[in-house]
Amino acid sequence: MARTARVAQIPAIGKLDRAAGGLSRQVAQALREAVRKREVEPGDTLPSTRLLAASLGVSRGTVIDAYEQLIAEGFLEASAGAGTRVAPALTEAGQAVEPRAPQQRPAKRRLPEPAAAFAQIAREFRPLPPVPFAVSVPVGLTAPADIWRRLGNRVRAKGPGAPAGYADPLGALPLRDAIAGYVRKSRSVRCEPDQVIVTSGTQQGLFLASQVLLASRDEVWVENPAYRGVTAVLERTGHSETMVRVPVDAEGIDVDAGIRMAPHARAAFVTPSHQYPLGMPLSMARRTALLAWARANQAWIVEDDYDSELRYQGHPFPSLQGVDPDHVVYLGTFSKILFPSLRLGYAVVPDDLVDAFCGARVLMDRHPPNADQYVLAEFMAQGHLERHVRKIRNVYADYRARLIETIGALLSDDVAWVEPGDQGMHLVLWLARGIDDRKVAELAAREGVSVRPVSPMFAQRTARPGLVLGFGGFGHAQMKAAARRLAAVIDDVSTRS
Amino acid sequence: MARTARVAQIPAIGKLDRAAGGLSRQVAQALREAVRKREVEPGDTLPSTRLLAASLGVSRGTVIDAYEQLIAEGFLEASAGAGTRVAPALTEAGQAVEPRAPQQRPAKRRLPEPAAAFAQIAREFRPLPPVPFAVSVPVGLTAPADIWRRLGNRVRAKGPGAPAGYADPLGALPLRDAIAGYVRKSRSVRCEPDQVIVTSGTQQGLFLASQVLLASRDEVWVENPAYRGVTAVLERTGHSETMVRVPVDAEGIDVDAGIRMAPHARAAFVTPSHQYPLGMPLSMARRTALLAWARANQAWIVEDDYDSELRYQGHPFPSLQGVDPDHVVYLGTFSKILFPSLRLGYAVVPDDLVDAFCGARVLMDRHPPNADQYVLAEFMAQGHLERHVRKIRNVYADYRARLIETIGALLSDDVAWVEPGDQGMHLVLWLARGIDDRKVAELAAREGVSVRPVSPMFAQRTARPGLVLGFGGFGHAQMKAAARRLAAVIDDVSTRS
Repeated sequence: MARTARVAQIPAIGKLDRAAGGLSRQVAQALREAVRKREVEPGDTLPSTRLLAASLGVSRGTVIDAYEQLIAEGFLEASAGAGTRVAPALTEAGQAVEPRAPQQRPAKRRLPEPAAAFAQIAREFRPLPPVPFAVSVPVGLTAPADIWRRLGNRVRAKGPGAPAGYADPLGALPLRDAIAGYVRKSRSVRCEPDQVIVTSGTQQGLFLASQVLLASRDEVWVENPAYRGVTAVLERTGHSETMVRVPVDAEGIDVDAGIRMAPHARAAFVTPSHQYPLGMPLSMARRTALLAWARANQAWIVEDDYDSELRYQGHPFPSLQGVDPDHVVYLGTFSKILFPSLRLGYAVVPDDLVDAFCGARVLMDRHPPNADQYVLAEFMAQGHLERHVRKIRNVYADYRARLIETIGALLSDDVAWVEPGDQGMHLVLWLARGIDDRKVAELAAREGVSVRPVSPMFAQRTARPGLVLGFGGFGHAQMKAAARRLAAVIDDVSTRS
Repeated sequence: MARTARVAQIPAIGKLDRAAGGLSRQVAQALREAVRKREVEPGDTLPSTRLLAASLGVSRGTVIDAYEQLIAEGFLEASAGAGTRVAPALTEAGQAVEPRAPQQRPAKRRLPEPAAAFAQIAREFRPLPPVPFAVSVPVGLTAPADIWRRLGNRVRAKGPGAPAGYADPLGALPLRDAIAGYVRKSRSVRCEPDQVIVTSGTQQGLFLASQVLLASRDEVWVENPAYRGVTAVLERTGHSETMVRVPVDAEGIDVDAGIRMAPHARAAFVTPSHQYPLGMPLSMARRTALLAWARANQAWIVEDDYDSELRYQGHPFPSLQGVDPDHVVYLGTFSKILFPSLRLGYAVVPDDLVDAFCGARVLMDRHPPNADQYVLAEFMAQGHLERHVRKIRNVYADYRARLIETIGALLSDDVAWVEPGDQGMHLVLWLARGIDDRKVAELAAREGVSVRPVSPMFAQRTARPGLVLGFGGFGHAQMKAAARRLAAVIDDVSTRS
């Protein structure tokens, strides 16, 4: 037979903080604690609300509210005539009610199987501090003009840019319109707005493409070296074994080698405008061969066109998509030409794959946030984006030339040399064989210099040491000082190795 | 021996549009077309720049620019003394250069294997038009106040809310701080800011959890019925076969049934505060049993707490996470209490899983957009969020009561009845057996009424017909009119079935 608890037996409920307010919540919490501490047991009848209120010096309504809350939670049970008691069901796993203090956890507990690989990826992708030579830091001359802010204030005030409900997973139509017009003109992409999917940038485009285009045992070509964002996605979506690393030479990805290695691959992830990280464009002959292979093999090409707008002279190469829109998924981003923290980019996909990409996107994050889409659409419609690109193209050309000059004066050619190029906001500084580029990056970070090692971008056993240096958004004096510190680190690691 | 093309043989280059500007780009494009149309062949030598410039009436510099562009692309080749010729390599797959017109594509071509399932998901998740009874349309009384806009203008103008580079995949620290404080206070969640990961909402939290917690053959408990956003994610990440649908009764998920069905499941996805879609809270006894099972089995609980703030009376139930922070991944969102188009939510994870969640997130979309994170952090720090929640809680309680009254007057109890509840911004209207809820939703859409069918939320062969009706943000007159049209549709489908 369950006993009736007396108020004096429940010390946990003595601790009300009247100044804090919310008294009924405090009473409820105190009763939960009393159960956890076994001051009252499952099955015990509680004091009446009148008695408890009197002994706590609170109104009876306060105690009634607390009891009702706990009844709703299943913690207490009320029965007509018999008062309110602690739910007997709590006995079943009574110990469990006591919260575990964190220190009770075993030091090394079993984590889920995928956790270790994801944790490694987190370390690898940790953002670099915004000092030279981090990529894509839009400050000074390369930051979007004040017009971005003013347009934003206006667009967000009312209309579709203002707070709203769930929206189209494909993105806002005015932005998709603007993007279609932009890529048609600047990149010879052939598309209608309904083939444009607004993404959060290239990374999401790559993730979507890997999900939609590849079944579990499908082979896929990836350049060697390549952006870690693509190899890591393929590893984590079950393609570690079926990813075929195709060598890159002076003309870009070696299509013949790819055909020898995996003739029936279902897709090829490529960076034809500006190979990442090396920088050369894919030659015309290779473009032709790649598309011919894709058509003959019913394969898909994922064209990652992350910075083609930043070709300093002439025009960017026309896209592969423009030559064969049926076999190419074209990915672009505003991270490089506008700013990364915006998180907006796009995928242009064949019309019979639009629904599939839409479905994959909706499961990842429903849809892009509305407001900035409308701001960007307006920014593009008014011609600001094209003006901005023209401006920063010149700035980057200048920054690159200055950086190369600075590095050339600091490091001898047998220790480090720059990969040629005429595009983008980063360059590759090769290091002599034997210099550990990860070590250089690690030591440079301690000196306040941000660089990414190149070797992790290669397949195992083909790695060459090098560094990716971004040159966007830093003043010349700042870059010079950082280059001096970096050169000292490289010399140091070089002589020790 | 390759011939030398004469200008007269190249009709494609006659079509310059002088008014449009960009003449060298036009010349380059015209030459590409001439090759595609076989007006000049691979290996042919082109007219000299002087000759071509004269015959087109443009400056020689214009033609030189165009030739250099095409040489850089590998389309043309220059050799000292021998003039400029079309690259012979183009022959290898010469046909490929001709762009394919879309109509050449076979009507039914082979699409990637995953495409069909994703396309089906796109259709299922298509956003409903913002008319009654779409969920989460923040207009009128439930829209955030003007303070949101004014704060936004200020925060975006300078500092970390202004355009910036790549940021922390876990989210902006001031927002993570604000969220940690908020969930500690309102939900008894026990966490530090470094356990908070800013997401784009519950959907991304569910996706991340499925990736990090589950290896490929792991069993996982999912409520029956459940949010389609969770079952669809598990289906598409390889868990169709290992997803165990655990029945829900008046106390929420039936833990004993789960243990009978899959005692060694690695995770359980649950909605303990407000079962989705049915609405009941998980009883205290079940909470205790669920946590005891998770601890004994080293399993993970994913606590989807999508709308616990919207409990009309009393306090929301304390979270499972607060009882056992080591075994629970807690998911929250601002979509319901603020507005969906913001796309911000959060996951609170055990500290030894933070890196893994961070790695999974970085591959999906790098990090959340910066600006609105800082706006929201400020909005919360100034106490606006709590004021807003207090306000809309009362509004939703009122809307729900009015809607139930309206429906009760329109439909007889043997055709349709409302599931009881006291929380949230939606209700479930059950339909009599035999009424096809998908049909009702489809016909209602034609009448300008947005509803979601409940049957797809059940496992096969356990489905019951019903409708999810959102009651946020619509005026009473508008809801009444929509309810009349909906009732007519239900009666119509009911009598025909």
